[in-house]
Amino acid sequence: MAVYTDIRDDQLQAFLANYAIGDLHSFQGIAEGVENSNFMIATDNGRYILTLYEKRVVPADLPFFIGLMKHLSERGINCPQPIAMRSGETLGVLAGKPAAIISFLDGVSVRRPNASHCRQLGEALAAMHLAGEGYTLHRDNALSVSGWRPLAEKSLARADEVEKDLSGLLLEELDVLEDRWPAGLPAGVIHADLFPDNVFFFKDELTGLIDFYFACNDLLAYDIAVCLNAWCFESDNSFNVTKARNLLKGYIKVRPLDGEEVMALPILARGAALRFLLTRLYDWLNVPEGALVVPKDPMEYVHKLRFHRRVTGASAYGMDMPEAARS
Amino acid sequence: MAVYTDIRDDQLQAFLANYAIGDLHSFQGIAEGVENSNFMIATDNGRYILTLYEKRVVPADLPFFIGLMKHLSERGINCPQPIAMRSGETLGVLAGKPAAIISFLDGVSVRRPNASHCRQLGEALAAMHLAGEGYTLHRDNALSVSGWRPLAEKSLARADEVEKDLSGLLLEELDVLEDRWPAGLPAGVIHADLFPDNVFFFKDELTGLIDFYFACNDLLAYDIAVCLNAWCFESDNSFNVTKARNLLKGYIKVRPLDGEEVMALPILARGAALRFLLTRLYDWLNVPEGALVVPKDPMEYVHKLRFHRRVTGASAYGMDMPEAARS
Repeated sequence: MAVYTDIRDDQLQAFLANYAIGDLHSFQGIAEGVENSNFMIATDNGRYILTLYEKRVVPADLPFFIGLMKHLSERGINCPQPIAMRSGETLGVLAGKPAAIISFLDGVSVRRPNASHCRQLGEALAAMHLAGEGYTLHRDNALSVSGWRPLAEKSLARADEVEKDLSGLLLEELDVLEDRWPAGLPAGVIHADLFPDNVFFFKDELTGLIDFYFACNDLLAYDIAVCLNAWCFESDNSFNVTKARNLLKGYIKVRPLDGEEVMALPILARGAALRFLLTRLYDWLNVPEGALVVPKDPMEYVHKLRFHRRVTGASAYGMDMPEAARS
Repeated sequence: MAVYTDIRDDQLQAFLANYAIGDLHSFQGIAEGVENSNFMIATDNGRYILTLYEKRVVPADLPFFIGLMKHLSERGINCPQPIAMRSGETLGVLAGKPAAIISFLDGVSVRRPNASHCRQLGEALAAMHLAGEGYTLHRDNALSVSGWRPLAEKSLARADEVEKDLSGLLLEELDVLEDRWPAGLPAGVIHADLFPDNVFFFKDELTGLIDFYFACNDLLAYDIAVCLNAWCFESDNSFNVTKARNLLKGYIKVRPLDGEEVMALPILARGAALRFLLTRLYDWLNVPEGALVVPKDPMEYVHKLRFHRRVTGASAYGMDMPEAARS
């Protein structure tokens, strides 16, 4: 939870004068998101989210994120839509920070997704991947395989404080992943952080996707692997293969996977587990003085990583090879 | 900013089933309030605030607060209105905490109130005092004169860390206030915390009052004194007598002050300054481990207190005795 930057009413009113969305009726800081400051605002025209981009976001990446939301929403994906100023610009400055207003999306994120939620998530993820085709901006995934070793090296010296010989596990895993990371799979724009809190439902029907601030270009199937980790484990870290099967079925219904992608799922899932393990581990070991955010426990992703290390094929994720492989 | 208690979507859905306000469209934690956890929720019927009462609120006080909002809103004060469950109850339990849903109020609080805002604040405060008549529940002001010495004693040993001989100032002030605190002035229900963040405006017109969780029974003019401190000092701690005159004029227009009340204003203003100085000092010296809230600087109220110590009569607040005194 976080609002890092306080906005005065007069600053906000002056900023809103750039937009044709009417008078300000209310605004509240939202206790969500760990990267940026978010405010809900209501005007004559309805509700919006105002985001101030804080220091963890690279300003040069903002056109990619904002352009992507525009691209996707124009192609029928229900995601926040950037609101243009009278000038046509979608990115401004408020309280000294880059700032944008995006449309407000109704819906509630589910804490404990069921198999139906997972199936719909799979469909929506695939639809997003298809809608991302033709997006002209490019952003490398800094948190993909080549970024993991440098990230791990920042935590290795203290990793064993979290679990006995965790540093050994990390080094072993880095070797395996760097050696076996798939090349040549279908690539495109991925969300890269599609956790349950970034997916909205209304009456158990998926209504929208939010938070595109990790989106980047990478292997499409890697995005599935992120979701397998984020959606298909129970709170006791057991893997729910029914949820995984539903997620994959939903995905394949919209965008069939080729055989290479299916076979790569176990290694992609290990990589996705390592990626979140590494960022959580770093945040866990480096809680800043006066932090407003409680870091997430890296051990959750250690358990997930161990699960995928034992997996020998995509059938562990409920994947029926004959049904899925179309290549 | 704070959301101390995290709510799961399924917990919230179950809680909402007690109410006849339709299906849940969205909910967000609000980064406001230092006492409770607040969530904005939207349902078929509109927007609401869901509050979970955290440990600084005494559960036995909740019927007073919730009943007061109902009493005031029924008498035309634009303040949050408690929403009753199907059972008729307005207070429930969610995530193990006492919880209530109140109506959402449009409006924006002003960070730098001008004289017009102050005049309207005065009018609204007086209207609230009149509307509070006939409210049958009673709540003593634990933060009035008899509570200040015990509160000060918790900080005296370390007060001089904040300013040289601050402890001496506090002791001197306690002696004066205990000796000269007025008795027999008109009393009733006061807000006791009507800072600018608790007053909403739309297009510079006052639209509502919120946050009644310090409300209590006390001298009505003490509530004015709290507002003089909270609304009429500039950010450099200079006192803006034009704002004060407007605040008092607005108040008197709705509820005339008697001569005793006018004469008591300087001592009431000293008391109000000491009250906020003492709570801020305590919070400043006792920041809990892992605090999510940055404590407010007690020195602001040291400066305000010093201003009122130099005041010799209500004319310092722009008060015209002949105009105001009607007794």
